[in-house]
Amino acid sequence: MTTLHDAAAHTFASDNYAGAHPAVIQALADANGGHVASYGADPYTRRFSELVEQHFGAGATVHPVLTGTGANVVALQSLIPRWGAVICASSAHIYTDEGGAPERLGGLKLLTVPTPDGKLTPELVALQAYGWGDQQRPQPLAVSITESTELGTVYTADEIRALADQAHAHGMVLHVDGARIFNAAASTGASLGDLIRATGVDSMSFGGTKNGLVLGESVVALTPRAAEGLTYIRKMDAQLASKMRFVSAQFVALLEGDLWLESATHANAMATRLAGALSRLPGVTVTQRVEANGVFVVLPLPIVEQIRAVHHFYDWNRATGEVRLMCSFDTTAAHVDALVADVAAAIAAL
Amino acid sequence: MTTLHDAAAHTFASDNYAGAHPAVIQALADANGGHVASYGADPYTRRFSELVEQHFGAGATVHPVLTGTGANVVALQSLIPRWGAVICASSAHIYTDEGGAPERLGGLKLLTVPTPDGKLTPELVALQAYGWGDQQRPQPLAVSITESTELGTVYTADEIRALADQAHAHGMVLHVDGARIFNAAASTGASLGDLIRATGVDSMSFGGTKNGLVLGESVVALTPRAAEGLTYIRKMDAQLASKMRFVSAQFVALLEGDLWLESATHANAMATRLAGALSRLPGVTVTQRVEANGVFVVLPLPIVEQIRAVHHFYDWNRATGEVRLMCSFDTTAAHVDALVADVAAAIAAL
Amino acid sequence: MTTLHDAAAHTFASDNYAGAHPAVIQALADANGGHVASYGADPYTRRFSELVEQHFGAGATVHPVLTGTGANVVALQSLIPRWGAVICASSAHIYTDEGGAPERLGGLKLLTVPTPDGKLTPELVALQAYGWGDQQRPQPLAVSITESTELGTVYTADEIRALADQAHAHGMVLHVDGARIFNAAASTGASLGDLIRATGVDSMSFGGTKNGLVLGESVVALTPRAAEGLTYIRKMDAQLASKMRFVSAQFVALLEGDLWLESATHANAMATRLAGALSRLPGVTVTQRVEANGVFVVLPLPIVEQIRAVHHFYDWNRATGEVRLMCSFDTTAAHVDALVADVAAAIAAL
Amino acid sequence: MTTLHDAAAHTFASDNYAGAHPAVIQALADANGGHVASYGADPYTRRFSELVEQHFGAGATVHPVLTGTGANVVALQSLIPRWGAVICASSAHIYTDEGGAPERLGGLKLLTVPTPDGKLTPELVALQAYGWGDQQRPQPLAVSITESTELGTVYTADEIRALADQAHAHGMVLHVDGARIFNAAASTGASLGDLIRATGVDSMSFGGTKNGLVLGESVVALTPRAAEGLTYIRKMDAQLASKMRFVSAQFVALLEGDLWLESATHANAMATRLAGALSRLPGVTVTQRVEANGVFVVLPLPIVEQIRAVHHFYDWNRATGEVRLMCSFDTTAAHVDALVADVAAAIAAL
Repeated sequence: MTTLHDAAAHTFASDNYAGAHPAVIQALADANGGHVASYGADPYTRRFSELVEQHFGAGATVHPVLTGTGANVVALQSLIPRWGAVICASSAHIYTDEGGAPERLGGLKLLTVPTPDGKLTPELVALQAYGWGDQQRPQPLAVSITESTELGTVYTADEIRALADQAHAHGMVLHVDGARIFNAAASTGASLGDLIRATGVDSMSFGGTKNGLVLGESVVALTPRAAEGLTYIRKMDAQLASKMRFVSAQFVALLEGDLWLESATHANAMATRLAGALSRLPGVTVTQRVEANGVFVVLPLPIVEQIRAVHHFYDWNRATGEVRLMCSFDTTAAHVDALVADVAAAIAAL
Repeated sequence: MTTLHDAAAHTFASDNYAGAHPAVIQALADANGGHVASYGADPYTRRFSELVEQHFGAGATVHPVLTGTGANVVALQSLIPRWGAVICASSAHIYTDEGGAPERLGGLKLLTVPTPDGKLTPELVALQAYGWGDQQRPQPLAVSITESTELGTVYTADEIRALADQAHAHGMVLHVDGARIFNAAASTGASLGDLIRATGVDSMSFGGTKNGLVLGESVVALTPRAAEGLTYIRKMDAQLASKMRFVSAQFVALLEGDLWLESATHANAMATRLAGALSRLPGVTVTQRVEANGVFVVLPLPIVEQIRAVHHFYDWNRATGEVRLMCSFDTTAAHVDALVADVAAAIAAL
Repeated sequence: MTTLHDAAAHTFASDNYAGAHPAVIQALADANGGHVASYGADPYTRRFSELVEQHFGAGATVHPVLTGTGANVVALQSLIPRWGAVICASSAHIYTDEGGAPERLGGLKLLTVPTPDGKLTPELVALQAYGWGDQQRPQPLAVSITESTELGTVYTADEIRALADQAHAHGMVLHVDGARIFNAAASTGASLGDLIRATGVDSMSFGGTKNGLVLGESVVALTPRAAEGLTYIRKMDAQLASKMRFVSAQFVALLEGDLWLESATHANAMATRLAGALSRLPGVTVTQRVEANGVFVVLPLPIVEQIRAVHHFYDWNRATGEVRLMCSFDTTAAHVDALVADVAAAIAAL
Repeated sequence: MTTLHDAAAHTFASDNYAGAHPAVIQALADANGGHVASYGADPYTRRFSELVEQHFGAGATVHPVLTGTGANVVALQSLIPRWGAVICASSAHIYTDEGGAPERLGGLKLLTVPTPDGKLTPELVALQAYGWGDQQRPQPLAVSITESTELGTVYTADEIRALADQAHAHGMVLHVDGARIFNAAASTGASLGDLIRATGVDSMSFGGTKNGLVLGESVVALTPRAAEGLTYIRKMDAQLASKMRFVSAQFVALLEGDLWLESATHANAMATRLAGALSRLPGVTVTQRVEANGVFVVLPLPIVEQIRAVHHFYDWNRATGEVRLMCSFDTTAAHVDALVADVAAAIAAL
């Protein structure tokens, strides 16, 4: 097959416009050849499991799946019974961007709370955490947070612990949508175990794709209860890979050494660089704290389309002109500086 | 990452115990690097679409997904409304091996018919094709066949046409679970277009994994009606890959040249060789016609476990002692001959 | 069986704390005895169908079901395909009070909009009416309004027409949750046909229970498209009554003469009387326009529990102290005056 | 409302072609008037609960619902987690006659076994009771039997106990679809408690409609586990009656005295009389043991339509000419004798 695209192209559109880290492609080649058992009984999935226990602590179990939406639905269905509802931010990916999969595929009722920055707090959770025993109210049995959030902000370990404590005190469980958990861990400096296991999280969607995999997500169950029935649910949600070695091997490439941390730290640093430079330009407003790899910014309206044509990004809020600029493991300082220079020039030309 | 398995190991357990063809790994590397649009708006998915039109005819549309179960559910949900039921063989993968996904994820009622060889006929379909307008009977609106079947048999183009004609005459549609469509096409000698498009099939699950991909399936809609709503259903069934280029590129590697045909033809030939040799051994009964890459056989009961320990295979019917032996693109004549020799020796030692 | 309750008891808790109108019990007796066909092929269901055509116009079809939740789910599933989403007020019964049935039973994604008075407007609908063709966004294909609303307000025929026109202009359909449609029609003075059929509504949940039935709801499909598949969906949603004559006969008792209008007009009048009197008391604030049979009011906090103990009502908003007072077909002026007197006395004693 | 049907008409079509027992209509009138709490917190539901404990034993809890399909789905969803499957006869109502509601509404995978007489045995259950721990097989976690069966046969208490013991030994639960439980209890002479509670049944769909109610079913949970989450599931399945007093009062009328037993005993006796007389006619074959209120019989083909035109009945198996004749609480000896006389005359005229 011939290469059909420009392998030097870069955008700020999404961390899944990026390809895979070369080490990940190499891992696929290394895991190839010969026969191994399918559906998870292979040495790469075993190795992935060991690494998850190393990072998250003994007893954590990992269950590879195929999409972020799949990870979220499998994790949440495993956590709560049929009548359970999930409290989440109204900006949560599970509520806004998954085509209704949680409701339709998972039968999950979502109870949403508006937030200024994508982050739930115990006070915000309390707005929906009521009505247990009321047969007409979907029973709030889980809280789901996104780490890092859809708005580029990051929960500290203490903030997660407070949400877990609140959830547990009410008989609820805490789920983390960790589509960008590596960026969050890199941002806080905490280990994955300190950020997720030690804080009391019950189950996490463990995202690999946005940090340099070809394709691969997982559910990490932090408690035995969170793993109950999970393998059956994974299959009935069409998330069971037959040649699972190829999903697991990619995660092994990330987790065996520091590749996960290097890639995430780099993407975060590029976002910080970008936000810093943009914030110094006249007429530009950075709208959210930049704590991971996303930058939310209002640009002068007349320049938006000319910048977009070169650097590619998505609107976040058309009403306010806010756009989202995402950095990836392969974003370079030169990419950032070129964008900043183009914005500066366009503003100067206004 | 280091290689953790024996890259020379071979089994007859399943065509997904095999790894990927090296050209497929190379295609992943070729598609890597740089940024391309996510969720399908990339040049590899465009190229895959062109190739599907070349193979299946103009107007056929392809929609990459992630698992065979996902392909089947997405295809069937797109074909029929909420109240539709699907007539299938009682040995169909959708009924027996998908964890209830069609029913639970898809809300699809399956109406099953026993068959001697995994193949539906118009006479067999007629046993369930009734009750339209009866508000208490799930409405039969689709027929689903597996090509090649779970029992290693293959429908000819004429047989498919007869089923499509019957379905259409009753206002139903015909779906093909093509998890092993390449083996079927190689077996019949027909082109994919002649076998699937020209016969009147409405929609097909297009399997790549069992013919040498790392991971990748698709839905091919043969009519505009079969594609309606499909992209939304794909997302709500958690089957939308973000970095879709990597799914599509693998299929391009198969379809651009003859790789698909070579691999499937080879696997089929190995099965034929295996069945021929086994059938000449005393006390061995080949139970199904060998038309694709699977061999169903009853071995003398006392030798089953010693052969299984070396060559690996699954029981098909414990009551009768029938086992399933699958050949893959990487099965060699030496693998086949070694199995046959071991069986012969074990029988001689009885 | 002996009577176990106080047949003179009255509350302001809900119009389903009330029993049935005696004419409805008589209709059950009149429809009893002998054999008639089950599942809807009986003369009472035929008569009900004729009456629906008289009230709503030729071609409207009626489909009896068993609960208001069931009516809403059956109606909405019949209106839109699997990938459709429904725009509704965030105070809509389907979103807040149905245990997640629309999502879980119906696979329906709800897109909510906050409203000040429970009523959607074209401007409010527009906040969610976007994203057609975006494969990651649940497709907005229906708008659902409640008439009269959960907040006791009523849409005029012109307001409904504006919403229907907007919906149709975008390829969407308009559904009315008519759990209290009789109260709305009585309030506006419009006929059911003028309020619902002439305005362009596509399908309506037709509530009988809250206007004096023992138990019985229906779906009225105003267009042939809205009725497609409805009978199958009704069965698969467990909403098909076997002895349907007994559901239909109750509606016949309401609709043959003016019983529906008398009961609804009376309940509305009691609400108006109640709101008028309460609004003249110091420290009492009526919070919503009183257009149907519900009164929303903030009482002085110290008197709430003593009044509730005698007259029974539900909190609407604990944060603000707002409570809901519902009038029924059997609420009398004496009941209203007693409540007002008790409130006045309690306030005076503060 | 005027009576629109012939209150003297009788058929052998179904026990739900019959109306309600006059005592049931009287119970509705007695329960009417005044206000009581909705959604189950009323004195009639409390009384019904007491009677269920009297009949089934202390701790049994009853949960009124609206349809038999609803009862089955609510009961089964409450019994098993999302990944559970239900073993049932291939003739079970849940599999053949409920529009796919168990699968679609309940997400329940059904694993069927053919039976000669509608009755499962431990040997038949064993054909599907395997595969626990296999992530690709829907997990068999419940067995569901119908008592009396769709074929008019009845399980003895000992037979039920054997199925319950087998189920429990495998970690499964036993559900009874008791749409005609009164006929079964009358047939065996056992009390409801001895037939259902003492035998180890976990949960039962408790049918009232077919034994003389206007409309009303229930779920009886025999263990605390079987009741867990049931009220939430009832609501999300649209099976929660707002004016529940009217469902409960009907059951109270049946259960307070011997009305349930008298009606069921009578219907059974009419079936026995009918089968006895028909079996003595030349060319007539009674195909199933007559143990409850249904008679399955092959009539001479040339006379079927002329008899059907007068007495009304349904075909059971068109291939064999088998028809089903159902007796109801209001079937009289004269009705039976008239049918027999007409059959005899028609045969004589052949």
